[in-house]
Amino acid sequence: MADLGEFGLIDHVARIVQQVAPGEDVLVGPGDDAAVLRVRKGHVVVSTDLMVEGRHFRKDWADPVDVGHRAAAQNLSDINAMGGRATWLTVGFAAPPTLPARWATDFVRGFAEECASVGAGVVGGDVTSADKITIAVTVLGRCTVSPVLRSGAQPGDVVALCGRQGWAAGGLAVLGRGFRSPRVLVDAYRRPQPPYDAGQVAAEAGATSMIDVSDGLLADAAHVADASGVAIDIASATLEVPEPLVAVGSATGADPLTFVLGGGDDHSLLATFPAGAALPEGWVRIGVVTDPGPDGPAVTVDGTSYDGPTGWTHF
Amino acid sequence: MADLGEFGLIDHVARIVQQVAPGEDVLVGPGDDAAVLRVRKGHVVVSTDLMVEGRHFRKDWADPVDVGHRAAAQNLSDINAMGGRATWLTVGFAAPPTLPARWATDFVRGFAEECASVGAGVVGGDVTSADKITIAVTVLGRCTVSPVLRSGAQPGDVVALCGRQGWAAGGLAVLGRGFRSPRVLVDAYRRPQPPYDAGQVAAEAGATSMIDVSDGLLADAAHVADASGVAIDIASATLEVPEPLVAVGSATGADPLTFVLGGGDDHSLLATFPAGAALPEGWVRIGVVTDPGPDGPAVTVDGTSYDGPTGWTHF
Repeated sequence: MADLGEFGLIDHVARIVQQVAPGEDVLVGPGDDAAVLRVRKGHVVVSTDLMVEGRHFRKDWADPVDVGHRAAAQNLSDINAMGGRATWLTVGFAAPPTLPARWATDFVRGFAEECASVGAGVVGGDVTSADKITIAVTVLGRCTVSPVLRSGAQPGDVVALCGRQGWAAGGLAVLGRGFRSPRVLVDAYRRPQPPYDAGQVAAEAGATSMIDVSDGLLADAAHVADASGVAIDIASATLEVPEPLVAVGSATGADPLTFVLGGGDDHSLLATFPAGAALPEGWVRIGVVTDPGPDGPAVTVDGTSYDGPTGWTHF
Repeated sequence: MADLGEFGLIDHVARIVQQVAPGEDVLVGPGDDAAVLRVRKGHVVVSTDLMVEGRHFRKDWADPVDVGHRAAAQNLSDINAMGGRATWLTVGFAAPPTLPARWATDFVRGFAEECASVGAGVVGGDVTSADKITIAVTVLGRCTVSPVLRSGAQPGDVVALCGRQGWAAGGLAVLGRGFRSPRVLVDAYRRPQPPYDAGQVAAEAGATSMIDVSDGLLADAAHVADASGVAIDIASATLEVPEPLVAVGSATGADPLTFVLGGGDDHSLLATFPAGAALPEGWVRIGVVTDPGPDGPAVTVDGTSYDGPTGWTHF
C-alpha cells in the first residue's frame, strides 16, 4: 500500500466502488469532503460496525474478497433487522503499509459486490495506516413501514427464525482446528447468506420485534428479552441441525446444537410475531414469549436455563 | 474495559450520549440494530474518518476529553466544508481491554460535547477490542442550499480562507519536542475550533468550491485544483502568521510560515468565490484561481512552486 500511497489507493478504490456498487440517489460519491445523497421523506436507519483483523477475521481463513462480502453482510444485516432496505454505505479501511494494495482492492471489490446484491451503494470512505487491518462500516437504509425494534416483543408472541443458523459457527470451528471441510460450512462462514428480503417482509407481516443474530442465537434472544422486558423460551426440537453440523459435532466431540444456539455469523433473523399471525415464507417458529419470571427477563431452552456456549463478547 | 464488558460499556456510553448530545429528529438512538432518523426531503451529506492511536493522536499529548473533541471536530468539519449542517454521528471505538473504562467514557463525553455544540446528535456506535485505540466516525448532515464541492473552482475566482490556520501544527510541533507551550497553540491542537458556521454562510454567498484544511493548506488547495482542473496561486503576504507561531519558529529554527502552509489540524475552510463576490465575514482573500499551466493543475505560492512541507499522507 505504501507504493500506491493513500491518495492513489483512494482513487483506485473509488473507481471500483463506482463500477460495482454505484447506488441510487447518489448525487456525489466518494472523493469530496462528503457524499451527497438524495433522500426521500421518511425514516432513515443507520448502523455502524468495527472489524479488526485477528478478532473478527483472519487473513488465512478467508480471502480478501470474502472478507469484503462478510464485512458488508454484517452491516446490511443490521438494516434487514430493522425491517429496512440498505441504501448507502461508507467504509473506513486501516492497514499496515506493507499490506499488498491488491488485498485492499480485492476487499473493496467483495464489499461492493455484496452491497450491489441488495441494491446498496458505497458512497464514501477513508484510508489510513494501522498495525492491523481495521474495517469500519456505516450503513444507511430506508424503512417503508415502521422500523421493527428489539423492544416490542409481547408475552404470547411467537418467536421465529429465518435463515441459516449455526452453519458459520460450524465453519469457524472447523477453521479453528486447521481444517477446510465440510466445505459448505467453511463457505457459510466466509461468505454468509443473510436472508436480506426477510426483514422487510417480516415488518410488513407485523413482526413485533426483530434482531439479526450476530452475537449468538441465545445471546441475541436475550437482547430482545431485555429490551422488551419479557422471557423467551426456545424449543430446541424446532431448531434445524443440518447434517454437516452433525458431522462436525461427531468430529469435534461437540453437541451440534451448540453451534445453532451459540453461533452468530450467519446473520439469520430472529423476530417475534403476534400469536395469531401467519409467519411469512422462510420463517420457522422456534419458541414463545412469556411474562418475565421473578428474576426478570431471561431466555430458556425447553423451559430450563441453558449453560452451554451462548455467544461471545469482545472483552 | 474488560471489567465493564462490551455491553456494560455500550450501555454507559449510550447514556452519556443521550444526555449530552441527544440530537434532533432521532426516533431511536443507540441500542437497537440501527438508529432511526426522521429526514426531511432534500440532500443528506455523509462522511467518514478513521483515527488510530499513535498516528492521529497520542494519549500523552491530549486527555481523552480533548481527543473526543478533536475526533468530532474533524468530522463535523467535513460537513462544514460541503456548506451543510451536521445532524447525526456514529462512532466506532476499538481499544485494548486494559484501557481504563474512564478513558473511553471521557472520550465519548468530549465527542458528544463537540457534537452538541453544533446541535448534532450521536445516534449509534460500536465497541470492540484492538491493540491500539481506533476511532471510526461517520457524520451525516443536511444542506439547505446546493452542497459546495471541490470541483467548482473557476479561473478568475478568488481563493479565501476562514478560521485559524497553522496554530494546531505549531502546537503539534511543540508537543513533538516534549514542550507544553505556547499553551494557546497546544490547546489549538488539542481542541480545534473550526469555523462551524462559515461553511453554510459561504455556500449561501455563492462559494464555487470548498474544502476543509485537514491535509495541509497547500495539500488541500491542490485537491481543489485537481478536482476543478485549475491552478491556484497563494499570496503568502495575505496569510496571518500569529505571534505564538513566530515564537515557535524562533525556538525550533523553522520558518513559521511553513506551519501555516503545511498545517492541517485546525480545520479551517478554504473556498473559492466569483471574482466580484463580497466575501462573508471572517473570510480572508489569500489567492487567485487561474487557468492551469501546461503541466496541468498546480498550486503555487507567490507565483512559484513551493518546496517546503505541504502536508502529510498516512503511508
